[in-house]
Order: sequence, then structure tokens, then C-alpha cells
Amino acid sequence: MPNPSLLILPGDGIGPEVMAEVRKIIDWFGANRGLKFDVSEDLVGGAAYDVHGVPLADETMAKAQEVDAVLLGAVGGPKYDDLDFSLKPERGLLRLRKEMDLFSNLRPAQCFDALADFSSLKKDVVAGLDIMIVRELTSGVYFGEPRGIFEEGNERVGINTQRYTESEIERAARSAFELAMRRNKKLCSMEKANVMESGVLWREVVTRVGKDYPEVELSHMYADNGAMQLVRAPKQFDVIVTDNLFGDILSDCAAMLTGSLGMLPSASLGAPMANGRPKALYEPVHGSAPDIAGQGKANPIACILSFAMALRYSFDQGAEADRLEAAVEKVLADGVRTADLLGEEGVTPVSTTQMGDAVVAAL
Amino acid sequence: MPNPSLLILPGDGIGPEVMAEVRKIIDWFGANRGLKFDVSEDLVGGAAYDVHGVPLADETMAKAQEVDAVLLGAVGGPKYDDLDFSLKPERGLLRLRKEMDLFSNLRPAQCFDALADFSSLKKDVVAGLDIMIVRELTSGVYFGEPRGIFEEGNERVGINTQRYTESEIERAARSAFELAMRRNKKLCSMEKANVMESGVLWREVVTRVGKDYPEVELSHMYADNGAMQLVRAPKQFDVIVTDNLFGDILSDCAAMLTGSLGMLPSASLGAPMANGRPKALYEPVHGSAPDIAGQGKANPIACILSFAMALRYSFDQGAEADRLEAAVEKVLADGVRTADLLGEEGVTPVSTTQMGDAVVAAL
Ligand SMILES: CC(C)[C@H](C(=O)O)[C@@H](O)C(=O)O
Ligand SMILES: CC(C)[C@H](C(=O)O)[C@@H](O)C(=O)O
Repeated sequence: MPNPSLLILPGDGIGPEVMAEVRKIIDWFGANRGLKFDVSEDLVGGAAYDVHGVPLADETMAKAQEVDAVLLGAVGGPKYDDLDFSLKPERGLLRLRKEMDLFSNLRPAQCFDALADFSSLKKDVVAGLDIMIVRELTSGVYFGEPRGIFEEGNERVGINTQRYTESEIERAARSAFELAMRRNKKLCSMEKANVMESGVLWREVVTRVGKDYPEVELSHMYADNGAMQLVRAPKQFDVIVTDNLFGDILSDCAAMLTGSLGMLPSASLGAPMANGRPKALYEPVHGSAPDIAGQGKANPIACILSFAMALRYSFDQGAEADRLEAAVEKVLADGVRTADLLGEEGVTPVSTTQMGDAVVAAL
Repeated sequence: MPNPSLLILPGDGIGPEVMAEVRKIIDWFGANRGLKFDVSEDLVGGAAYDVHGVPLADETMAKAQEVDAVLLGAVGGPKYDDLDFSLKPERGLLRLRKEMDLFSNLRPAQCFDALADFSSLKKDVVAGLDIMIVRELTSGVYFGEPRGIFEEGNERVGINTQRYTESEIERAARSAFELAMRRNKKLCSMEKANVMESGVLWREVVTRVGKDYPEVELSHMYADNGAMQLVRAPKQFDVIVTDNLFGDILSDCAAMLTGSLGMLPSASLGAPMANGRPKALYEPVHGSAPDIAGQGKANPIACILSFAMALRYSFDQGAEADRLEAAVEKVLADGVRTADLLGEEGVTPVSTTQMGDAVVAAL
């Protein structure tokens, strides 16, 4: 059997720095656990634009379709702010999501014990927090047509279309129910069914899919209330399922609750390929952080934990994923901290590289 | 000169209870400060549906167009969950906003000193918080066409349309800049210009309007980052301007930060009428809370402070608004608490009526 293949797309800003640490981890698993990967690397986002004039070259897109999993760093930066909409770094990421049909975006919001003090929320509100947001990732207002800026009378109008078919809702819902079955069997679906017809259909389809999962306790919440409840008492949730745009905002809100943004990974999964593995892309929740790029200040853990998710969801290596996650927890328990994990206490932070090395050492 | 006119729409759930307390306050200003209002009352939401079969009767809509200001309690409840979309209680509220053309929704998120401990956030993160969210209220995905649930091939598709014209963005932006001028001269505009063309136009127009307000420091933020920053460090903001849907979610998130949801009022303002007063509707940020309706547990302060906003924004009675707000602060400082403002300490809460009476006494 050939080795499983990984395409690494470091992207922009701190992307390349954090990805360099992930490569150390990948190498460690190859050398010590017999998990060898065929790793290739390519460009996405602004980095691709600089070379190819587009945020994702067709050849890169083709490669992404062929590999077993894609690991992505981050895209975007002020340098590209004035680019035409269609050339922005983000379009590269969105093209990957859309063409690989990665409809199910898993975003854990987990509060690490060693870091609970670092949240802006009270410790008892977030300590032990462990929720999973399933965000639909290939439809909704991100991709709906018509879209654009049009002339209308004497002025222009900006238009985007929120659009969900029953089958799009169904497959996202199903992946959320499956996850809930492997967790605490509680699923909360969020939309604005009181205001949007797309939300009415969303609620109806999720309810119908729920009939196939009688063990899962299903609830529905308006997305505005969802934002409130996440802030008020996030531990009431186990799995949350929501659409692309609400998911973007609510998962960032949830991520920030943990105080550990630099720690949070994500997986974007599609349908199974011929070899049974799902189409998959893994990326940290944090952005490209251009303000600290190139300074060795970035925290590589979110990206490292994204690789752990790859081990679990793409390569059926749950035990190895646990091993990697345990190594990260040990490093944190030992007090190793990048700059983002420190308050004002005057402790000296470790660099990106030192953090990567510490995780390797803990392995 | 005739007395200014007020239309009171208590609505559903705790709406009637909290509004009864506001009427005491209105009476107090009439008897003691020479501020007499012609008050009429009517139905909205589920209460209107029960009587008229629609969530807002045409005659009520006509009255709302004529009065100087509308005070609304809250709409909605589980009893109406299965109603057709067009008959849901929320449609009554949305019809008022749309037909009165109330494009500028002012939502203060303020943390009351006496209540800072009650937030789920750390005290130093929220103490003294005082931000104002200006939410566009008459356009965007709430009202854009096409909308609905349609047949497509073998399945249905739910569609809503996000739609903003330049002039719609401009008038909302202008009202936010005006507010910023009267506050700390900082305005942050939030959208998803990296993903949505309507956000690109939004950012462009807000920037252009900003040229007329050179003293205001304008910044732009993606709405997902906005949600994060609100949780991380809300005091970085002064005024925030955003669209209808983002505003719905972000303002609820901001409201919950304060820990004082039962305390937060809102104003929805339109263009000036013939008498110079803006079209206006005032309502608490909280919902109809059907779980505690009819039990005398509701906190009437959000609704009382909505009347304070009416004094300030509709009737040019800033000093009287200050007086009412000071009375509320005094009551809180004295330790008077409805059930929602108490932790588990075992203190006995006051009832809705007692809280209203306490505010009247403090006046
Ligand atoms: C970079 C951007 C296009 C993206 C999104 O809006 O989906 C990001 O915010 C995310 O959540 O992954
Ligand atoms: C009740 C509902 C229609 C409304 C909205 O979505 O605007 C509410 O959530 C609000 O924020 O005023």
C-alpha cells in the first residue's frame, strides 16, 4: 500500500511558521510510529496570488482533489486588501472548500485546563468546556447566486443570496447527529426561522433527520439567542449545527470563550473517496495574524491539533491523535507558553519553534 | 400645543407586565414634570393574532404611523410556533419596523456598576462597558426578495436575499457617525467584505460617509472577528455600525456581555416627521420570556429605560431621560433586584411591580 498523501498549503502570514512545526510532528510520527505520509507542499491565498496572479492555481486545486488530506495554514493580509474581490486570498480557501465539496466543518471549542484563566470569561463558566460546532461549509450566503454589485436606478446595490436545498441541509445535519452519537448525544440546531424562510426549511429538515437518531436530544435555538447562550452558559451545549454564515460568527464567538484561540483546530470534511477516506481539509481556526508574522511569536498548537484531527478523521488513527493531544496538554501543563498564552505577568514566552520542539519532546 | 402621543403595544409574554410598570413612570412624569402624553394602547404579535388573526392589524399599523412614538413590550411565544411564517408574532414587529421605515436601531450595551458581578465575563473586562450598536433595521436579508421555500427538481430550496442599496447603507452609516460625534468619536463598521459583495459595498459606502466626519476615527472589522473582539475586549469599542442580520446577533452577544439583559433598552428611529420628531419605536432588547410570563418575575427596567430613550430621542428631554436613568441606577445601588439580577445567594427578589414602584419612589 502506498503511503497516505498530504498536501500542505501554508498560505500567508503566520501560516508558514506554524506549518513548519507541524512538519516536525509529521516527521516524528513517520520515524517513531510507522505512520509515513507522502507530503507535498503548494501555495494558497496571497502567496499563490504573488506567484500565479490567482489565490489558488488550477494545478493546486487538482492536487488537493487527489490527496488523502489537505493541511492549510491561514490566508489573507493587508497587502491584499485592495485586490478585486475575485482575487482576494480568501477566494483560494473558499474554492478549496467548494470544489472539494467539504460540507461539514467541525470546530471544537475546548477550554484547556491549564489555560482557563486566560479566558475573558469567569473560570467556572468555561473550565472544562468542550463543545463541537458543525458548520455547513459549501452553501448558504457564501456561495448563493445571484451575487455581486449591480446598478439600479441611480445607485448601486450589493446582493448576496442565502440558499439551502433540503439535501444540503440533510447531509450537514446527518454529520452533526453522527458526531453527537459519539459524544454526549445532545444537538442544538441554530437558525433564524422566525425571520428567514431558509431557516424554516433548515429547522424542518434537521427535525426530520433527527427521527433517525432517536437517542440524540435535539433542540432548536434562534441564532441570536445562540450567541447569547454561548456567552452566558456555554457548557449547556454538546454539539451545535448551523449554517455557513451563522457558523462563521458563532464558532468564532465560541472559540474566543475558551481564551485559547491559538489552540483551536478545525476539520472540513466531504463525502468518502474511493479509498473510503473522506475528502478533507484541516486548518487552525485562527487567521493569518499579519501583525506578528515572521517574528517567531505565533502559537503552532492550533495547527498541530489540526493534524491530530487529520489522524482521527482521515486516517482512522484515533489512538495516535490522542497521543498527540496528550503531548500538547503535557506541554501546557508544564507551563510552556507562546506569547498569546501569557497575560501581563512578565514571563518570557517561548518562540513558535520552541513550542513545536516542546511538543515533539513530549511525544 | 397638543400633548405628544404615545402608542403602547405590550405584546406577548412578559410584555404586558413590564409595560404596566412603564405606565407608572409615564404617569409620574405627567404629574410631576409637566410632561403629559396622550397614551393609547393596542395589540401586536400573538396577542393581535388571537384577536384579529394577524400579528398586526392594519388599524394598529395606521395608528403607529401617526403617533409621536411607539413603545413595544415583546412578541412571540411557543403557542404560536406552528403558525404559518406570515402569521408569526415576529411579523407584526417586522411590519412596524419596515412600514415606519425605522432604519436605525440603537442598542446600547452598558454594564451597570452594581451588576458587573453578574456578567459571565470577568469584572475587569466588562465593568464600565458602554458601547452603542447601530443596526440597520429595514433592509438586508430580513426583507430582501426573492425569498421563500421553492420546489427545485425533486426537492425544496429555502431562499433569502441579502440586499443593500448605497442609500440604505448611507443613512444607517450617517446615523452612526452622528452618534459617534456625540460620544467618543470612534466608529467600527462590521461586515464580511471578504466573502460577501454586499459587504464590499457596505464598507465602501461607510468609508465615503466617513469623509464627512473627519473627527471620527473609523475602523472596519469582519463580523466574525467582531464577535470575537466583543468577547475578548469589548471596551475597545465605542459605536459599532452593522447590517440587520449581523446586528441581530452581535447586539445580542454584546447585550449578554453586560450580564444585564433585563436592563437593556433599544430605540429604532426613522426619518423626521412633519413635526421634526423622528419616526420612532422603543423596545427592550429582551424577548417575551414565556417561561416566566404572568408570574411577576420579569424585570421591567429594560422597558423603563426604553422610555428614557424615548424622552431623549423623540421628545428632546435629555435631562428628564438622565433623571430616569439616575433613578434606575439608584434603585440598583440600593440593592433592589428582580430574580434575573440575582445569583444563587438566596436573597429574595422583588416582583415586577415592586421594581416599578421602587423606580417611581427613586424619581
Ligand atoms: C477567511 C474566511 C473566508 C473564512 C470564512 O469566512 O469562512 C474564515 O473566517 C473562517 O471562518 O474560516
Ligand atoms: C423578534 C425578532 C424578529 C427580532 C429580530 O430578529 O430582529 C429580535 O431578535 C430582535 O433582535 O429585535
